[in-house]
Amino acid sequence: MVIKSPVIILNVKAYSESMGEKGLLLAKACQEVTEETGVSTAICPQQVDLSWIARQVDIPVLSQHVDAFSPGSSTGWTVLDAVKASGAVGTLLNHSEHRMKIADIESVVAEANKLGLVTVVCTNNISVSSAAAALGPTMVAIEPPELIGSGIPVSKANPGIVEESVRAVKDVSSDVTVLCGAGISKGEDVKAALGLGTEGVLLASGVVKAENPKEVLLDLASGI
Amino acid sequence: MVIKSPVIILNVKAYSESMGEKGLLLAKACQEVTEETGVSTAICPQQVDLSWIARQVDIPVLSQHVDAFSPGSSTGWTVLDAVKASGAVGTLLNHSEHRMKIADIESVVAEANKLGLVTVVCTNNISVSSAAAALGPTMVAIEPPELIGSGIPVSKANPGIVEESVRAVKDVSSDVTVLCGAGISKGEDVKAALGLGTEGVLLASGVVKAENPKEVLLDLASGI
Amino acid sequence: MVIKSPVIILNVKAYSESMGEKGLLLAKACQEVTEETGVSTAICPQQVDLSWIARQVDIPVLSQHVDAFSPGSSTGWTVLDAVKASGAVGTLLNHSEHRMKIADIESVVAEANKLGLVTVVCTNNISVSSAAAALGPTMVAIEPPELIGSGIPVSKANPGIVEESVRAVKDVSSDVTVLCGAGISKGEDVKAALGLGTEGVLLASGVVKAENPKEVLLDLASGI
Amino acid sequence: MVIKSPVIILNVKAYSESMGEKGLLLAKACQEVTEETGVSTAICPQQVDLSWIARQVDIPVLSQHVDAFSPGSSTGWTVLDAVKASGAVGTLLNHSEHRMKIADIESVVAEANKLGLVTVVCTNNISVSSAAAALGPTMVAIEPPELIGSGIPVSKANPGIVEESVRAVKDVSSDVTVLCGAGISKGEDVKAALGLGTEGVLLASGVVKAENPKEVLLDLASGI
Repeated sequence: MVIKSPVIILNVKAYSESMGEKGLLLAKACQEVTEETGVSTAICPQQVDLSWIARQVDIPVLSQHVDAFSPGSSTGWTVLDAVKASGAVGTLLNHSEHRMKIADIESVVAEANKLGLVTVVCTNNISVSSAAAALGPTMVAIEPPELIGSGIPVSKANPGIVEESVRAVKDVSSDVTVLCGAGISKGEDVKAALGLGTEGVLLASGVVKAENPKEVLLDLASGI
Repeated sequence: MVIKSPVIILNVKAYSESMGEKGLLLAKACQEVTEETGVSTAICPQQVDLSWIARQVDIPVLSQHVDAFSPGSSTGWTVLDAVKASGAVGTLLNHSEHRMKIADIESVVAEANKLGLVTVVCTNNISVSSAAAALGPTMVAIEPPELIGSGIPVSKANPGIVEESVRAVKDVSSDVTVLCGAGISKGEDVKAALGLGTEGVLLASGVVKAENPKEVLLDLASGI
Repeated sequence: MVIKSPVIILNVKAYSESMGEKGLLLAKACQEVTEETGVSTAICPQQVDLSWIARQVDIPVLSQHVDAFSPGSSTGWTVLDAVKASGAVGTLLNHSEHRMKIADIESVVAEANKLGLVTVVCTNNISVSSAAAALGPTMVAIEPPELIGSGIPVSKANPGIVEESVRAVKDVSSDVTVLCGAGISKGEDVKAALGLGTEGVLLASGVVKAENPKEVLLDLASGI
Repeated sequence: MVIKSPVIILNVKAYSESMGEKGLLLAKACQEVTEETGVSTAICPQQVDLSWIARQVDIPVLSQHVDAFSPGSSTGWTVLDAVKASGAVGTLLNHSEHRMKIADIESVVAEANKLGLVTVVCTNNISVSSAAAALGPTMVAIEPPELIGSGIPVSKANPGIVEESVRAVKDVSSDVTVLCGAGISKGEDVKAALGLGTEGVLLASGVVKAENPKEVLLDLASGI
């Protein structure tokens, strides 16, 4: 299953508001929004809920992280093959809350490409976006760390970093899709992000901590 | 749900043989052995399968690892509350393939005690067993790293490390249960382990990579 | 060379105020205070300055950290043997800014004991102090992380954690010396720390960032 | 001080043969070879010896590693400013024995560029070489991990990875110098490396563990 762009990717992190049954409801809300609006969504459940949620929704499901180990004696680590076996279509990598070694990103991306899995590499500035693109992932998501969880949308606070990341990534490879994230919570933020050349957004607290997540998702979808 | 001892804990690691449906079959095999023999078993599914498997079996399910984060902005990390929400009863900690900082073991154990979750802290020698016991976990599992996956049972290869770990742990706190692991694959190994003062075993490849895991589990149970 | 207690150990961290020549001046100030007052002091220079400073002062010099590697192919890591070759007498371990895995603390402490080097294991609470003592170090230094660099002395803010750590450590082994740290900057703080049963203090910013470090050191020494 | 290319960079790692006085002798041997042959050499002393050795030799000295911290409360970590204060001219980064997070390499490289320090980023394959170049370091050193310490020179065993890394790096930025390493121990290996488009070599055990390191260095220099 391929992720259609433009896309809204919801990372539910490890919030209390996204554990267990609450995480399943968030995934179902994404699916309903896709069914009702035709806008592509994807969800990244909590690590321990991945397999359980991936088996119950019809939208693409991504792991929040994968460790750079092959299947084997790796107690407590998440390997790509287990993500694939769960029914998920790929994984976030190098989130600002889970930075990875450059050699590990490369090896996971290369293996994911072999397994037909999607990789979304998060980056913190233009230079890292460019380097990440050189590793051959499916997508690069530029997220200035200082704006994550801030409520101030990157598309307004720092449009330059988004535009230049798009340019830097496309210079390296036109095949790599660029997303942006950090502070996104409204349809107008999504619209602004697409206007800067991205093909979607990655977001978390704006939806997960909302009183009515589906309403927020519908508003976000209206920006596409 | 409390883990009844003596117990056989199966850690399925990140083996190809324990992913997805295959992991569920292993969990069901444990359950059948418990139902048929009355011997207490518990299973540690792959990280992404935890929630899915915990909801389908009637034996205690443990996480293979928990990260020392509180619920919140911790993308891709496993927090205790998510483990509890999944229906699991606790977690392994500090496995030789996933060593932890001493301050992190302490904080996770303390939080697990508050949440009523079981903690099984793995150790590599007598001195670390003693230190681990001082942190107040439910169980300590002594596993000499050089014997893990070797097929040579610790109960035969190094009975002294097991006996002295039991003594060292009990000296610190008689409330802490002691298990042993590494190289265990037969009923006689389990019997020997109990003879050395432990209240159970932690094992992995001996069952997971067996042609007939249930047969191996039945043999192991016969040692109790 | 053994560290005589009661002792004032100065950790210069990676402050701008303690690099290169400035670090050497701090070490010489400690030495002068020891010569003038007879009070035992020791210094932990910046990692890259260890060998250079250890060769120029007559007080005990400690590394700020050691990695759990044997001599060999370990580019950029600090091994115990190199610390010994530098003329230093031992090392801090598990500082709150450099937490270590329990198995690594154990292996470094065991190796240091063989090499005749001093180990000072930092801890964050009573439970970890007790566990650290079980690993057999020379000293345990209790430092509540929330007070480090605060200017609020642990000996005033939380005398209970100090007294109970002393008791917990001595319960495990009467051979282990207990220090305390965090927020210490005056002679009266040192006096209070000794009154709580410790045999010295570990401190940093109170001296390093002082306008006149030697004056502060003299005041600290007056507390002994 | 700039590093003149072609250059032979000697990484002494954490070998017993390169600690303390033995490390100083190795640095002096490099200096003698440069004085006698005019060939540019540089040395990476053990972390704790950096300041001590940098103050005693007239060739460029590099740190083996730098941690991505600013000066401050970072006990036991090596910061760039301390490396500069020691008299060293820069640092290796991301050695195969000390892999770094992509965001940390970027931040250290950017800061080093501001401070006028040299950065040599080690890489394991063509894709990572290309990504590393995008981060703007002074040099990229391609070292296939499987050949490190093997005695089989990368310039013979895998000339393709060297040639293609040179091309990949130069495609990203013609300002970045490319070195190669792994298994290099003779003048002919150096000659072959330069023939593949590199401007020098990074090596360790071939010199450090030699009976007569200076003789090996002279032979290596003869390849330039």
